[in-house]
Amino acid sequence: MRPSKRANDELRSVTLERAVARYAEGSCLVSFGETKVLCTASLEERGPPWLRGSGKGWVTAEYAMLPRATHERTRREVTSGKPSGRTQEIQRLIGRSLRAVTNLPAIGERQITVDCDVLQADGGTRTAAITGAWVALHDCFAWMRGRSIISVDPLREHVAAISCGIHKGTPVLDLDYAEDSAAETDANFVMTGTGGLVEVQGTAEGKPFSEGELLELLALAKGGIAQLVALQKQAIA
Amino acid sequence: MRPSKRANDELRSVTLERAVARYAEGSCLVSFGETKVLCTASLEERGPPWLRGSGKGWVTAEYAMLPRATHERTRREVTSGKPSGRTQEIQRLIGRSLRAVTNLPAIGERQITVDCDVLQADGGTRTAAITGAWVALHDCFAWMRGRSIISVDPLREHVAAISCGIHKGTPVLDLDYAEDSAAETDANFVMTGTGGLVEVQGTAEGKPFSEGELLELLALAKGGIAQLVALQKQAIA
Amino acid sequence: MRPSKRANDELRSVTLERAVARYAEGSCLVSFGETKVLCTASLEERGPPWLRGSGKGWVTAEYAMLPRATHERTRREVTSGKPSGRTQEIQRLIGRSLRAVTNLPAIGERQITVDCDVLQADGGTRTAAITGAWVALHDCFAWMRGRSIISVDPLREHVAAISCGIHKGTPVLDLDYAEDSAAETDANFVMTGTGGLVEVQGTAEGKPFSEGELLELLALAKGGIAQLVALQKQAIA
Amino acid sequence: MRPSKRANDELRSVTLERAVARYAEGSCLVSFGETKVLCTASLEERGPPWLRGSGKGWVTAEYAMLPRATHERTRREVTSGKPSGRTQEIQRLIGRSLRAVTNLPAIGERQITVDCDVLQADGGTRTAAITGAWVALHDCFAWMRGRSIISVDPLREHVAAISCGIHKGTPVLDLDYAEDSAAETDANFVMTGTGGLVEVQGTAEGKPFSEGELLELLALAKGGIAQLVALQKQAIA
Amino acid sequence: MRPSKRANDELRSVTLERAVARYAEGSCLVSFGETKVLCTASLEERGPPWLRGSGKGWVTAEYAMLPRATHERTRREVTSGKPSGRTQEIQRLIGRSLRAVTNLPAIGERQITVDCDVLQADGGTRTAAITGAWVALHDCFAWMRGRSIISVDPLREHVAAISCGIHKGTPVLDLDYAEDSAAETDANFVMTGTGGLVEVQGTAEGKPFSEGELLELLALAKGGIAQLVALQKQAIA
Amino acid sequence: MRPSKRANDELRSVTLERAVARYAEGSCLVSFGETKVLCTASLEERGPPWLRGSGKGWVTAEYAMLPRATHERTRREVTSGKPSGRTQEIQRLIGRSLRAVTNLPAIGERQITVDCDVLQADGGTRTAAITGAWVALHDCFAWMRGRSIISVDPLREHVAAISCGIHKGTPVLDLDYAEDSAAETDANFVMTGTGGLVEVQGTAEGKPFSEGELLELLALAKGGIAQLVALQKQAIA
Repeated sequence: MRPSKRANDELRSVTLERAVARYAEGSCLVSFGETKVLCTASLEERGPPWLRGSGKGWVTAEYAMLPRATHERTRREVTSGKPSGRTQEIQRLIGRSLRAVTNLPAIGERQITVDCDVLQADGGTRTAAITGAWVALHDCFAWMRGRSIISVDPLREHVAAISCGIHKGTPVLDLDYAEDSAAETDANFVMTGTGGLVEVQGTAEGKPFSEGELLELLALAKGGIAQLVALQKQAIA
Repeated sequence: MRPSKRANDELRSVTLERAVARYAEGSCLVSFGETKVLCTASLEERGPPWLRGSGKGWVTAEYAMLPRATHERTRREVTSGKPSGRTQEIQRLIGRSLRAVTNLPAIGERQITVDCDVLQADGGTRTAAITGAWVALHDCFAWMRGRSIISVDPLREHVAAISCGIHKGTPVLDLDYAEDSAAETDANFVMTGTGGLVEVQGTAEGKPFSEGELLELLALAKGGIAQLVALQKQAIA
Repeated sequence: MRPSKRANDELRSVTLERAVARYAEGSCLVSFGETKVLCTASLEERGPPWLRGSGKGWVTAEYAMLPRATHERTRREVTSGKPSGRTQEIQRLIGRSLRAVTNLPAIGERQITVDCDVLQADGGTRTAAITGAWVALHDCFAWMRGRSIISVDPLREHVAAISCGIHKGTPVLDLDYAEDSAAETDANFVMTGTGGLVEVQGTAEGKPFSEGELLELLALAKGGIAQLVALQKQAIA
Repeated sequence: MRPSKRANDELRSVTLERAVARYAEGSCLVSFGETKVLCTASLEERGPPWLRGSGKGWVTAEYAMLPRATHERTRREVTSGKPSGRTQEIQRLIGRSLRAVTNLPAIGERQITVDCDVLQADGGTRTAAITGAWVALHDCFAWMRGRSIISVDPLREHVAAISCGIHKGTPVLDLDYAEDSAAETDANFVMTGTGGLVEVQGTAEGKPFSEGELLELLALAKGGIAQLVALQKQAIA
Repeated sequence: MRPSKRANDELRSVTLERAVARYAEGSCLVSFGETKVLCTASLEERGPPWLRGSGKGWVTAEYAMLPRATHERTRREVTSGKPSGRTQEIQRLIGRSLRAVTNLPAIGERQITVDCDVLQADGGTRTAAITGAWVALHDCFAWMRGRSIISVDPLREHVAAISCGIHKGTPVLDLDYAEDSAAETDANFVMTGTGGLVEVQGTAEGKPFSEGELLELLALAKGGIAQLVALQKQAIA
Repeated sequence: MRPSKRANDELRSVTLERAVARYAEGSCLVSFGETKVLCTASLEERGPPWLRGSGKGWVTAEYAMLPRATHERTRREVTSGKPSGRTQEIQRLIGRSLRAVTNLPAIGERQITVDCDVLQADGGTRTAAITGAWVALHDCFAWMRGRSIISVDPLREHVAAISCGIHKGTPVLDLDYAEDSAAETDANFVMTGTGGLVEVQGTAEGKPFSEGELLELLALAKGGIAQLVALQKQAIA
């Protein structure tokens, strides 16, 4: 039995609330159970210097946690003068995931920065962030089309993400903090709305896992991501 | 006429929502109109090193803004490796204001860190932060008393803060961003529930102000802070 | 009785020595008793980037203390890699105070940096710095007019500053270190030569202060600043 | 045809040269074709502070590239003051991989730091580093047993790593720089000597990949890692 | 003819003014012509951690320039977050020079930090700093003996320093800025009161120099240092 | 007797291996006994900004040690965020030494960066680095001439360096780590192929040294450098 009493293939309650930030071109407050991430998409008229003259735009992401998003207070990263390795890993992952479904030339030489700030953390913050960031990005592009800044939607398809893991020997979907900290294997999957794999990251926290276990986790992820994409569709409808 | 149509001595709509952060010992989401600040109070069992052996505790504050709290996206301070001068000025002010009404020996050798994170910024973020931080701190002390960590309430009285300014020649209360960026004089007042002055900061942005104008701003502040303290009382009732 | 035997409204012995730095366009060694600050004004032909094309110039200030200006040696700020919050607060205050009396377009697109380096610290370093910085800035503008770089004096009027405080229940003028470290309330006033207020900063170090006390401190400050402005006039005569 | 004329499932020439650093407790110069990484294992008698009193040791890794390991000179990371996100990601991966096959209590409260310095980079530096680091760590443990610092070998089994990718539509093993920079999908696999998965990281650089492609890459990796483990066995024989 | 009209073996006017900093245990304002350095010696009761238990003390030095010590304003090093290579080179040199004539065990487990702050720079700041630092250190030790903190004088002998150089083909003593910036060879000598060499640093700025030239510079330095030591003796008499 | 049994004027075995780095324009692995330094010369088409428009090029150097080059592991400098004072001193010395024999206008407005990375450290790393860096720079210029980027060789002559010291009262050549850490006086000499002095640095580690001792060290250095230059000639033949 999972600590949360959920079935092995059951997501937490997921909500995607749009237009939560008054000044951002697109925004979404995403909740996976008690995990809450505020995603804002900001348009900057200048693209990154290394794309100057290419006609292409860029989508990048930043990620941070409020100090008391966590069970114990965490020091602000500004105090140590730089983002931690974990933060950098996550923000690179979010950026890659969004770019995988974006037609960059359709943006023109502009940059969209999607900020994912974790207000409350109960496991799965990076996967919630990707799932909510897609909605914020979608709304930013809608805003741009509404003002004729771009003419076609640069988004080619949906992208969403979910964590899976092996907890007490059993593959389970969408780990919360209690499961995550005890899991033997931890995996994150990023997939498109049509089932393509964008990113697979599986890590043995204790003993190694087998090919069979990897496939079971992948099957759980496919089911979970299908539900997340359905919720994204509902949200933007 | 003020841009917001408010009377010169009229506050924006102020709300103080408690218990908004699941893991913090005390928390408050404060809104002054479109300005929204999430305040969390975190208990740490170890006080600062320079108070070791003194029997006294400490209350400190940290302040930050989400990148897209503002009309234009602001760079994260972690990117430049250190909090800006403005951030440091504000977090020192919040900490001093809270300590002015706290009986530090009653906390024991512990530290409370109050994090004030601006989710949305429309002027007056530091005064909203002080007003909400008091509620979060109050609830943290209640939590500690509930668990018999401390026996008496370390808070001696209320503290709240408000900005005033001279806008187009007229003294007005609680400036929003539109007024703030055009004000000739900008002043922040921090006062206790019994009307004592904790901090007065007045700055001529353009031409110098007179003693008479200072007194008019002080009168407006006294009225505003009385209302804020009444709202704090309601919130914790 | 004050530790220094001074009357409550009595300044320390104040001196303003000009042309003390061979290479600077303007300079002043200011002493308020044992507090000594070396102020130099440096002309840079390039203004800050954000004023390019505006036709306006800029005046900015930097502040630092020699490590053994103080009773105990203080670590150099370069060792911790950044100016402290206190340093930044002070240098922003000095800069604002000087700009409040400067006609920025009259400088042209240039920048004057006024460096205030505390050689010896016995309380009131920031107010001594502002008072001396005005003289250094005045001499820098004289130097520029002498070379026909500018045609009119960009200084509209004098500016000077003084600290006041409530020490053992009594409002007193121009606190030295012994008084400052024991004061219940600490206030700094920046005023122009014609009595306009540029900056008022009052802080309760212990119990809150009343409106009446604020007015008493203001009265003391007006008297002190009138004397400082008279000394500035003498110095530049 | 691959740029290097290799078969799709063919490794580059791999060498593992031991005892290349005179002062290190264990060392290995690993080459995967033109990629060369110097791995040294250093014993430190003090474990990390957070393991004090636990009876357990720790294995950690650091990774860097010489500035001219690459086709174009790369700036030293010390110049920007911090390791890049990529560097941190890689050194965390190497450390996790080594710990996955190490019996940490058997080390006692000590730390082994494995430094992986890339002398020449032609793709696959992180997988070469893991493969060579295992040999350096093995020799460090042998050195410790030779001096009776520990009594049993803390290594439970071999660990090695290889990159795979989809290049011009074809899954291939052990990408060099030419292939890596053009691959549509890039994957790194870390596996033990008995075929357990320690880490799977697959990233779509261009279009998403399918479950079938993931399985093909995994099959290639299994073959490659079996050969690398055989070479490790030969090297330490 | 030298730009300053001095003879080739002629020092600038040198003064050593003691007790110039009210709070320091020892201090000296040293002038070599227009070069002025404020040297303060500060006693700290705790020695450096790596000497704990050794019974030995330590003498260290720090060096900095005020921003407008120079002809053109120089940026504060705190702005770039770290002391420059030049600053570090100089402060290491001053520290080594002072320790070369100090009996470290006679200090006990304490540290003396000598701060050398350049108020005005016209060439030769590091050699002036060493010469003045010796006087400040001497007075700090006298202060300590006066309070019976130590019983014998830890200073074994005098140490002083001078620069020499080859200017327009001629070896000259004590270069000012005008000569220094045009010299073909630049050399600094640190010597004891009894003529022992503590440090020799000769650098060809343009074409290499010969052994004969090195000896000529050394001869000039010996003469200059003898005069500096005589001035130190006078100063402390 | 020296710890290494060498005669007082005997170099360690010195080797200079060229073309060791596949991608660098010039490279040399230099060994002075167990000290091994990898030197690479990298051409960058853009010179430093302060030479823009001057028609002159620049040669600069960077220096670092692998963490386990040393007997005990040394922390990476990137961890503390900046190169140490020692590192900066050494890389400035290498750069000055190379520029002393380079005709900078003959390079055109380009920059050559010579990276000297110590793979193994047994004393004399900076002098080995200079000696090997010259070979790497020579080969970089040959590469440039081979591609007609420049038409004449910018190198005017050879430059090499050696350390000497007074060990147990005896002047000796080319100190290894065992001698270096016990030497009373330590000196580094940089000389050209025709015997000109480029840099002389002598430091008393314990008691001061005499003029006679300086001359003995210089004589040893001349002999050693003549041999090093002969080896450089052989290497590039």
